[in-house]
Amino acid sequence: MSKTNPGNFFEDFRIGQEIRHATPRTVTVGDVALYTALYGSRFALQSSDAFAEAVGYPRAPIDDLLVFHIVFGKTVPDISLNAVANLGYADCRFLQPVFPGDTLSARSQVLGVKENSNGKTGVVYVRSEGFNQTGDLVLSYARWVMVKKRDDASQAPEAQIPALPDRVAPEHFAHVCPPLEAGSWNDDLAGSSFRWHDYEVGERIDHVDGVTVEEAEHMLAARLYQNTAKGHFNQFSESKGRFGRRLVYGGHVISLARALSFNGFANAARIGAINGGRHIAPLFAGATVFAWSQVQDRQPVPGREDVGALRLLTYATSDRPCDDFPGRNETGFAEAVILELDYWVLIPR
Amino acid sequence: MSKTNPGNFFEDFRIGQEIRHATPRTVTVGDVALYTALYGSRFALQSSDAFAEAVGYPRAPIDDLLVFHIVFGKTVPDISLNAVANLGYADCRFLQPVFPGDTLSARSQVLGVKENSNGKTGVVYVRSEGFNQTGDLVLSYARWVMVKKRDDASQAPEAQIPALPDRVAPEHFAHVCPPLEAGSWNDDLAGSSFRWHDYEVGERIDHVDGVTVEEAEHMLAARLYQNTAKGHFNQFSESKGRFGRRLVYGGHVISLARALSFNGFANAARIGAINGGRHIAPLFAGATVFAWSQVQDRQPVPGREDVGALRLLTYATSDRPCDDFPGRNETGFAEAVILELDYWVLIPR
Amino acid sequence: MSKTNPGNFFEDFRIGQEIRHATPRTVTVGDVALYTALYGSRFALQSSDAFAEAVGYPRAPIDDLLVFHIVFGKTVPDISLNAVANLGYADCRFLQPVFPGDTLSARSQVLGVKENSNGKTGVVYVRSEGFNQTGDLVLSYARWVMVKKRDDASQAPEAQIPALPDRVAPEHFAHVCPPLEAGSWNDDLAGSSFRWHDYEVGERIDHVDGVTVEEAEHMLAARLYQNTAKGHFNQFSESKGRFGRRLVYGGHVISLARALSFNGFANAARIGAINGGRHIAPLFAGATVFAWSQVQDRQPVPGREDVGALRLLTYATSDRPCDDFPGRNETGFAEAVILELDYWVLIPR
Repeated sequence: MSKTNPGNFFEDFRIGQEIRHATPRTVTVGDVALYTALYGSRFALQSSDAFAEAVGYPRAPIDDLLVFHIVFGKTVPDISLNAVANLGYADCRFLQPVFPGDTLSARSQVLGVKENSNGKTGVVYVRSEGFNQTGDLVLSYARWVMVKKRDDASQAPEAQIPALPDRVAPEHFAHVCPPLEAGSWNDDLAGSSFRWHDYEVGERIDHVDGVTVEEAEHMLAARLYQNTAKGHFNQFSESKGRFGRRLVYGGHVISLARALSFNGFANAARIGAINGGRHIAPLFAGATVFAWSQVQDRQPVPGREDVGALRLLTYATSDRPCDDFPGRNETGFAEAVILELDYWVLIPR
Repeated sequence: MSKTNPGNFFEDFRIGQEIRHATPRTVTVGDVALYTALYGSRFALQSSDAFAEAVGYPRAPIDDLLVFHIVFGKTVPDISLNAVANLGYADCRFLQPVFPGDTLSARSQVLGVKENSNGKTGVVYVRSEGFNQTGDLVLSYARWVMVKKRDDASQAPEAQIPALPDRVAPEHFAHVCPPLEAGSWNDDLAGSSFRWHDYEVGERIDHVDGVTVEEAEHMLAARLYQNTAKGHFNQFSESKGRFGRRLVYGGHVISLARALSFNGFANAARIGAINGGRHIAPLFAGATVFAWSQVQDRQPVPGREDVGALRLLTYATSDRPCDDFPGRNETGFAEAVILELDYWVLIPR
Repeated sequence: MSKTNPGNFFEDFRIGQEIRHATPRTVTVGDVALYTALYGSRFALQSSDAFAEAVGYPRAPIDDLLVFHIVFGKTVPDISLNAVANLGYADCRFLQPVFPGDTLSARSQVLGVKENSNGKTGVVYVRSEGFNQTGDLVLSYARWVMVKKRDDASQAPEAQIPALPDRVAPEHFAHVCPPLEAGSWNDDLAGSSFRWHDYEVGERIDHVDGVTVEEAEHMLAARLYQNTAKGHFNQFSESKGRFGRRLVYGGHVISLARALSFNGFANAARIGAINGGRHIAPLFAGATVFAWSQVQDRQPVPGREDVGALRLLTYATSDRPCDDFPGRNETGFAEAVILELDYWVLIPR
């Protein structure tokens, strides 16, 4: 029996199966510094212990997406090592803030499987969960990936596609930030005077800036997350592959777009939930990422007078400025769009 | 009204105006590690808690230039987002050591304005100040930048150019390091036996080594400092711009030169003040930075028998070794010079 | 007298000479994060405080190789600044775990010297030792380097070559990990169910994955270790040199190979000793590193029923997958082999 991990193939996944993922990971201020260096995020809450304490946190929480990437990375060796494509995310909820010193671990449950008609691949649906060292659930999300079959001739299991919500209801993240005392949120320090009521449903905001991605950067990022997906690291193999080059980890694009969105949403310091996400096209090093967002919905958060929720649809592009708001069009997506992310942010009222 | 930050234009600055900058930043050992990885600095005081404790600090202080870059980065969105050129620094004083866990914030005051004769730009003089979480002033400096006008036709304010000192007097930084007990400074650990009295005014030292800069490195650095200047990050735009490529953040050059200067000034572990600085020419990734220094002055520090001050003039070059000491010449600066930095270092006697 | 460090030449080394190296270095969680980002190491013991506590450590120890690189880096300015080649390592013992917050310092003793017949260079043998802030010896190793003579005409000292052991006996590292209570080591979290008794002497394991190295990465690494070897950083000089380009620090290859070896040896979380190591050929940025290992020996550890030792021979290659196990052959080493590392790992029984 091989001692190296061959990953799971489509036939290996059974509905209801639970997988405990390897390599628990203590998140530290070292990770926070690297995350800042990789994306330049400027949300005051995650940047400053003093700001976080003023608004009721014990200290600056870890960026929500850094938590996501670390949990996601743990699932790769078991879920997507043999994936052909990472198809989507849904029902992703950030349930507890994570702080430096916390240790994250992860497990997944198989929600559904469906063989593709070509008989060579199938779609696997999983729910993945991240826990801290005391066993609190800090993150839960569903994703589905297209995975190779080990043997094209093997028989397909009965297809079962899980029902996943189109959106996470705001009550699910009502508790993730402490109550804000009046006046405790300093707009000058946060970088914007625009709060919940200032945003209109339908409003579109170009995040203006662009950031070019280098090979060293996305590899440092993916390794920081202990993400072992083969396509990110190995130019020798990828040079012979479909694209001829390394693929940037999709989560890197999400973090770049989120950091760019500070320019327009500086007070939206926490992500409540990700309703859905799609990587429309791959990103390669050398390209410059731009982003824009549309406010899809604006909802109060049950039981909270201090913060509200904005549902954003953020698009990222490769080598295309977003002043004309490229997104969906009649044939699918506009040229150069690489990411569509549908998520809730929490923002002071 | 746009929710994205357009930056201030020349017309937006009024003398006496105070600007509180966004995004307070807790500095951590994570930042220290990245700073070491970016520049390879070897000054024992900042590298070792044990060394720092032996000489009277509670622990290793944050590198002075890392403090400078973080404070500087905060000022960019308000002061220099529409800058054409960063013209100079003066009267930069390091007033309190900063330690891991401290939170830095920044504000600036407009000292002067002067429209250029072309009617398209003007020079803005500001004093920027950095504070720690208890409100102590840790850094104060003046800088002047050339900023675009929003409207060429707008009327110029009355020109007012602030008086700035040519040099910071040593009494201003006499208190920034704790008193050294006799024998507490270990030359072997610090890496040199040369102390204050060993340096002669006029002495020139080539720092010998060269270091090549990569795109990933200077972008990681600028983002670590949450510096949002557009020219550092966006190859898509810059490819159509004046240089055809991204510009390296000028402070990156200062830190590279300072790290190189360890080879010659290993005991000069703290910067007392920067008297002035000029970026003579831009640096681009792929080039190799060299540096040399001249001792301009050697002064006792008032009230201190344990440490003295050396005033250094450090030049950095791009793709040119410094064994022939390239600096000023009859027409300005020698070929390949990119930085002239005039500063005081503290060094044990 | 020059104030810059010219390094030692062959004539400067005398048998028995002790050298205290500069720049003590406090190792922090910031270094741990960068190490993870540079190599993607996934050994649970170093990744998770919670895992480490469960098996009896006070917290996650610093990766053994990070300790090695930091100690090694300190020796460079005194031992190998004028080295032509880094010839080998032997008798490298990891004696105490190092934790975040510990401060490392280093000293070396000259064990032997032997002039080469060309009269231009000589081989210098040193033992280098790393200490923590309380003076505990944490690491000890011998290495030998070929160093330039200052003056070809200078007379050679009498040749003396130290006796160095072929292998470190397991009793030397019997104490480096705390006793494992039954059941405290969680294979699921560690990532493998294979333990000491599952490995056969002679067994060969291809570590499958490959990782491409970028210039920014190896320079960040070498600077993190405050390694000042000139060949890693200066493209301006190296472009005129033997290879026309920068050389990757050999220790970078060791860490890459070790991180790759997780895929096959996930439970082998600590290195007990390095018996020997050779850099067969240089690595350059742009190349992809692969690795494979052979189990050379399997030994109990004296006094320990909980852990055993495996002696591994790990080979790394440049741009060559290792599914055919390229290693030694009749003429020396197979094409593309760049590293041979002979070491002991500790692994639960």
